[in-house]
Amino acid sequence: MSMKVREIAELLGAKVAGDRERVIDGVAALDDAQPDELSFAEGSRQVAKIASSQAGCVLVPPETSLPGKTLIEVAQPKVAFVQAAEALLPPQLPTASPHPTAVISPQAQLKEDVGVGPHSLIERGALVGKGTRLGASVTVGEDAKIGNGCRLYDGVKIYPGVTVGDRVILHAGVVLGSDGFGYVFADGAHRKFPQLGGLVIEDDVEIGANSTVDRGSLGTTRIGEGTKIDNLVQIAHNVQIGKHCIVAAQTGISGSVVIEDGVVIGGQAGILSGKVIRRGQVVWGTPARPMEEFKRQFKYLSFLPEYIGRIRKLTRQKRG
Amino acid sequence: MSMKVREIAELLGAKVAGDRERVIDGVAALDDAQPDELSFAEGSRQVAKIASSQAGCVLVPPETSLPGKTLIEVAQPKVAFVQAAEALLPPQLPTASPHPTAVISPQAQLKEDVGVGPHSLIERGALVGKGTRLGASVTVGEDAKIGNGCRLYDGVKIYPGVTVGDRVILHAGVVLGSDGFGYVFADGAHRKFPQLGGLVIEDDVEIGANSTVDRGSLGTTRIGEGTKIDNLVQIAHNVQIGKHCIVAAQTGISGSVVIEDGVVIGGQAGILSGKVIRRGQVVWGTPARPMEEFKRQFKYLSFLPEYIGRIRKLTRQKRG
Amino acid sequence: MSMKVREIAELLGAKVAGDRERVIDGVAALDDAQPDELSFAEGSRQVAKIASSQAGCVLVPPETSLPGKTLIEVAQPKVAFVQAAEALLPPQLPTASPHPTAVISPQAQLKEDVGVGPHSLIERGALVGKGTRLGASVTVGEDAKIGNGCRLYDGVKIYPGVTVGDRVILHAGVVLGSDGFGYVFADGAHRKFPQLGGLVIEDDVEIGANSTVDRGSLGTTRIGEGTKIDNLVQIAHNVQIGKHCIVAAQTGISGSVVIEDGVVIGGQAGILSGKVIRRGQVVWGTPARPMEEFKRQFKYLSFLPEYIGRIRKLTRQKRG
Repeated sequence: MSMKVREIAELLGAKVAGDRERVIDGVAALDDAQPDELSFAEGSRQVAKIASSQAGCVLVPPETSLPGKTLIEVAQPKVAFVQAAEALLPPQLPTASPHPTAVISPQAQLKEDVGVGPHSLIERGALVGKGTRLGASVTVGEDAKIGNGCRLYDGVKIYPGVTVGDRVILHAGVVLGSDGFGYVFADGAHRKFPQLGGLVIEDDVEIGANSTVDRGSLGTTRIGEGTKIDNLVQIAHNVQIGKHCIVAAQTGISGSVVIEDGVVIGGQAGILSGKVIRRGQVVWGTPARPMEEFKRQFKYLSFLPEYIGRIRKLTRQKRG
Repeated sequence: MSMKVREIAELLGAKVAGDRERVIDGVAALDDAQPDELSFAEGSRQVAKIASSQAGCVLVPPETSLPGKTLIEVAQPKVAFVQAAEALLPPQLPTASPHPTAVISPQAQLKEDVGVGPHSLIERGALVGKGTRLGASVTVGEDAKIGNGCRLYDGVKIYPGVTVGDRVILHAGVVLGSDGFGYVFADGAHRKFPQLGGLVIEDDVEIGANSTVDRGSLGTTRIGEGTKIDNLVQIAHNVQIGKHCIVAAQTGISGSVVIEDGVVIGGQAGILSGKVIRRGQVVWGTPARPMEEFKRQFKYLSFLPEYIGRIRKLTRQKRG
Repeated sequence: MSMKVREIAELLGAKVAGDRERVIDGVAALDDAQPDELSFAEGSRQVAKIASSQAGCVLVPPETSLPGKTLIEVAQPKVAFVQAAEALLPPQLPTASPHPTAVISPQAQLKEDVGVGPHSLIERGALVGKGTRLGASVTVGEDAKIGNGCRLYDGVKIYPGVTVGDRVILHAGVVLGSDGFGYVFADGAHRKFPQLGGLVIEDDVEIGANSTVDRGSLGTTRIGEGTKIDNLVQIAHNVQIGKHCIVAAQTGISGSVVIEDGVVIGGQAGILSGKVIRRGQVVWGTPARPMEEFKRQFKYLSFLPEYIGRIRKLTRQKRG
């Protein structure tokens, strides 16, 4: 899609300095942007780069002036860039029709404008909402419900009975609703505890490639609205994640953990079974603790060899 | 399936207090259970919840008395609950016939009562045992042997020559038999060491979603009977895991590690190449060490900032 | 394939002691090798094992003498073993023709000698190079380019526009080109930053099962020639990895990290966003630091409980 600079400015409710009629049809970083592309500059280091950028138009903080450049002044250039990019580059969707190699149960329900890629499978009782597009080799299990406007990339596997909200994005290889990891040891062997609970993914969640989310054992696992989860993350049975959280790659969340709204979890963190992470906390490490505490402990860990040397010396002096 | 309370009690060899003829057709946690569902209470906190539970029948420790409630007294309520749930809720299996879109080599051998889901592939020389059910988009490579009564969920990939025992459960996206990570550096490049060994998964193993197990390089990788492995676990070439071990999510086990019977490994643990973990040990951390040691070190790590402050003070006093 | 001992020696430019005409048709470790198999011994412990090995021929360091055994003397037995194994055991490739269940866009281009397994998908604009073989349920997205002589195992998912060089090996479940994890928080929600960049995998790269590599957000993610990556590794958007690096299992590399040539990264390491790892470094831990430093800190961590005890005692003495 292409837009004139003044159309982008109108969308953002902002004013233009420079060539209002210039046509823009893509976005790029300042270093790479071409004369038909939009970029943004936030912070003095990026603003200083504008002069040498080829970008056709740059979103800049208020009162940035660069004669000869086409600029749009906005309060938050990066946010405005996201908004403009959404308008300029609507997501490329797979075809809105089931591929002939897809297997769709006659007892499944597909709403209008649903795409189902090659070699995908929709089992009986499943529901796929309006405008949702499935890639290739996707499975939607029995009685699973997928909302409207979702995007399931290739190889996503949805176990039976899982519920997915609207506008959810699931990247390739995501597994939703696998059995939780629960056993009782009896008669010399681990016996499987029933894994019969549900899994609910609320609206506007995004889950990265090859991440796994288990169903509840008896209760329900839930991921709140707007929460974003990176690649290779593991979320165990009965976990409750709030709204608008961020979970970075390779993090593991153990059974029955509660994560309140707006929490941010660093990469490769591990949250112990049954823990509660309070609203808005930023945590990291295994076991996860507040980010500042993690950083402080980690810094002191690097001091350790020196300080243990000092203790040795003090102990010797005492004895001496 | 549904059972009367007295039938459940007979199965467990236990006695009933209350309504012996009540019909039960499901299981649930105390908080959620309905009048037609079975629950259990273990420990005084759960026992105290029975009074307000809607559960139709509760498995309780001996000498629990609650007039008006239907109770079954058992020595270990949670274990009995697992046993009753197995009877009440036999696993829902996919159809016992190959789907027309599955590709099955005429040189593969399928025993009776085998199900093969849509878009799955069974290569020549492969064997699939009696009653085993494969989901969609599963691959069983050349000459791989899958035992009886197994359950392979959607998207499981079995490389050629892998051997899987009876009653093994492999969750969606599991990869078995991929090449080990071995190279020799010569002439300025890493050259692939031969990855020709085998992989044997013994009876009653369960492996979680998107976990990976490599074949041996020259020898064999082996996972012992009854061992349970969680999601996103990595098991490298030539690893030997004993019987009835527990391996929690995102743990990594390096090449040639030996894990004896009954070991429990915490989540995100990392076991270094060539290590031996002795029978019955409980380990955690990277590199993995005994759980108690890990916890103690971790606790002391949190003391560190304070104690380094004390050392600084002591050192100053010395100088002063 | 089978070779005479003298043919193997010629290939290696080395000399034989013993039965030059013996026929060898496989390779194995010293303990397991049969009379028709080649093995190798490096180091005095392995050399001492030759006497009791059944191996038909053993690659040994110079001036190893064992009357009655057939030996080939080479400077580096393990490297020579890899070279001989490559000749004796050429990789078993899937058939060089598209399976009838594969879906191949008429606007895709397949060079000669390309194999495409059952239920795979090659989208329009994609190119698959000469001699490349794809397993089952593989997806090659729109406009993706796969080089010559590659091997994509079952269930590999290539997003649109990704570029893969020659002789690249991708194990089962690898995902290439998924969206990076980038959002801006505005109006109470995380909004997706554009993930429009590229992903380039250079020649001779190998990537382990279920690993994930994100495309660049605006720029390009790149993995250099000859780099080897283990299972369940996560590589984020805009990461630059040099040539001939080694990345062990479950490591996570955050956005915009630069890893120079010849770096070795231990298992489960975590590299923080924006870090640069210099040429040839060996790093480990989360956050990753030089291997020696990690080991030293880890050793001191185990001393910690004792030394904190000593500080307590010293502090008490001060007060007393």
